[in-house]
Amino acid sequence: MKTLSIDADRLLGRLRNLGQIGRDSDGRLVRLAGSDNDKAGRDAFVAWIRSAGLEVAVDRIGNIFGIWRDDANTNHTPVLLGSHIDTVINAGIYDGCYGVLSGLEVIETLQASGFVPANPIAVAAFTNEEGVRYAPDMMGSLVYAGGLPVEEALATVGTDGTTLGAELERIGYAGFEKPGFLKPHAYIELHIEQGPVLEREGMPIGAVENLQGISWQRVTIEGEANHAGTTPMSMRRDAGHAAARVVTFLRDRARRANTPTVATVGCMSFEPNAINVIPSRATFTVDLRDPDEGRLQAEEAALAAYLKELAAAEEVTISVERLARFQPVAFDKNIVELIEDAARKRGLASKRMTSGAGHDAQMIARIAPSAMIFVPSISGISHNPREHTPDADLVAGANVLLDVVTRLSAQ
Amino acid sequence: MKTLSIDADRLLGRLRNLGQIGRDSDGRLVRLAGSDNDKAGRDAFVAWIRSAGLEVAVDRIGNIFGIWRDDANTNHTPVLLGSHIDTVINAGIYDGCYGVLSGLEVIETLQASGFVPANPIAVAAFTNEEGVRYAPDMMGSLVYAGGLPVEEALATVGTDGTTLGAELERIGYAGFEKPGFLKPHAYIELHIEQGPVLEREGMPIGAVENLQGISWQRVTIEGEANHAGTTPMSMRRDAGHAAARVVTFLRDRARRANTPTVATVGCMSFEPNAINVIPSRATFTVDLRDPDEGRLQAEEAALAAYLKELAAAEEVTISVERLARFQPVAFDKNIVELIEDAARKRGLASKRMTSGAGHDAQMIARIAPSAMIFVPSISGISHNPREHTPDADLVAGANVLLDVVTRLSAQ
Repeated sequence: MKTLSIDADRLLGRLRNLGQIGRDSDGRLVRLAGSDNDKAGRDAFVAWIRSAGLEVAVDRIGNIFGIWRDDANTNHTPVLLGSHIDTVINAGIYDGCYGVLSGLEVIETLQASGFVPANPIAVAAFTNEEGVRYAPDMMGSLVYAGGLPVEEALATVGTDGTTLGAELERIGYAGFEKPGFLKPHAYIELHIEQGPVLEREGMPIGAVENLQGISWQRVTIEGEANHAGTTPMSMRRDAGHAAARVVTFLRDRARRANTPTVATVGCMSFEPNAINVIPSRATFTVDLRDPDEGRLQAEEAALAAYLKELAAAEEVTISVERLARFQPVAFDKNIVELIEDAARKRGLASKRMTSGAGHDAQMIARIAPSAMIFVPSISGISHNPREHTPDADLVAGANVLLDVVTRLSAQ
Repeated sequence: MKTLSIDADRLLGRLRNLGQIGRDSDGRLVRLAGSDNDKAGRDAFVAWIRSAGLEVAVDRIGNIFGIWRDDANTNHTPVLLGSHIDTVINAGIYDGCYGVLSGLEVIETLQASGFVPANPIAVAAFTNEEGVRYAPDMMGSLVYAGGLPVEEALATVGTDGTTLGAELERIGYAGFEKPGFLKPHAYIELHIEQGPVLEREGMPIGAVENLQGISWQRVTIEGEANHAGTTPMSMRRDAGHAAARVVTFLRDRARRANTPTVATVGCMSFEPNAINVIPSRATFTVDLRDPDEGRLQAEEAALAAYLKELAAAEEVTISVERLARFQPVAFDKNIVELIEDAARKRGLASKRMTSGAGHDAQMIARIAPSAMIFVPSISGISHNPREHTPDADLVAGANVLLDVVTRLSAQ
């Protein structure tokens, strides 16, 4: 029997096509959730779903589904594929879109082959995975999995003062389905790695067995503004200096430990932010990740202890706000093995790995057996126009997805 | 003979009056150079000069002079008193204004006493001492002393995109006199300390014998933006972390040294400033001050060496831009002794000290024997609505100024 394969030209063509939709006047790709550009991307995706003859459904948080089912399998739960098509500001064309369009590609390939699935097969584009305009990220899949009430999510006020619910209505994607209306038989998300590991190790396929737990905190340090020239070093309560101590503490601790823990301070601001004034306030974010929940908790505890010690030593006041917290996710062992098996049969080397990024799969894993397939990201670059994966790797990943879906929907 | 004293009610009344001029809708005192609020403050000062019967002169950079001279002394160089009346954002009422209004007060007191000065006596309000809207600070006195061509100063583009020259014309303070037109016989600036030393030591008068050298630099560190979750700690080029290392380096070095060196990082920004992205760029300012030029140069050299080492260790690119550099200033020994002597004769304890802040006096010292008198700042607070000096200290300082001016203009 001839091995079935996806239509590479169709998949790559759509990926490039979608990557041209939602460019700003500087040519930057910006499809923030609920925006006019997001609508343009959604419209293109829905047109492709319709042209494939799939049923289109949109739920209240704006998640879009393309469903292939027939009278014989409609009572079975669907094998769900998907990811997201919203982007960050100045994005690359692969993040999210590759998983969504590959899901559609797999369905069309199976349709054309005459394959009769025992389960429906559906492709989903989840709303606001990036979380740039509305927090938290992975919102559409979180709501879908029952982790956040839909009313609360719709009421989210964005960085530009808009409300997600009103924006979804405005762009015509406030649907009627109740989030969670399709309970998946299984969920598989194909995604670029967004990290350097697969490329460095020469592996075309990552069988993602788990996903790091994520702890996001915002730390505010209050000291005292004073004149930079007249205040002796010994009499300062310098919030900026205290913030810098936290950055170096986190870095030194993470480098010293022989663990996969990563710690990042990505946002930082000083007040009054004047060259000749000792900062009265410093505000910064801490992003801690670890695939082990116990270790993630230990890192959080170590930071809290350090902040307490620092507040006393520097005579500053420190407050911490939790912005997001997700426990590590273990994906479904059977699906991970199916991924490895599918890669092996196509002669593709694969590597079990941990996802360092958050993905919709971590939310859907709450309600269905789930796993992810990674393909290499050149230099690990993502959230950047230089994000790139070679065509051959994109095609290979979609073919592995095809084989896994075939196995799962034939059971 | 009865000791002459200034009119405390008149001085304090004007100080409070001027402190109400230029409040924004939140009640904050904001008289940025060249603004409508600056014009309102200038108009009040000029009205007081006129009511004292003084000659008013305005030079091309907008410095305002009130000159008391007569036919007998007009060929002699004037004893100049002064400071500035522009403010920072959300300022206190004393910084600068106290010196200007005390200068006027001294002249009016001497006029009323029948004193006949051998030299003219003049009071100056220098333009844009604070440098908040237009850089550099102390601009009016710098231009006056010949340290910056007036055309260049007038062409300065402000933080709001305006040009200082156009703004001075708009508010009616683009004068005709050539900066430097009055060559001072001596210059004395009375000012609040803006530091905690006098209050802490219970000293009402500071005889300021020198002024710290100032080195302002902007440092830009370029690393690589990457995903906070997928990039192992060992593979990061984190510009934010490198910036934090510089902050802790400067602090540790200044604390370890048993010198008056102060080092401050007041401004800090990260790019892209996103919680889950390793900073690709960090930009921050370094403010180094020391009363000894050799030591200040050594501190600059130590920073430069550290940045070089850091760039190699963290695989980041570091560039440095010099924003301002003033050598330490030694004030005139004779005037400093006159200040100490005047304080002693009034029964006021005084302390020789270094100015940690920059002042117009450091510029005028280039063209005339100069010195400063400090009065205590409660808790050292300045550039803040809580800036405060008790009335008794304000009056004592103005009386010491009166005595010094009497001695200088009787010679």
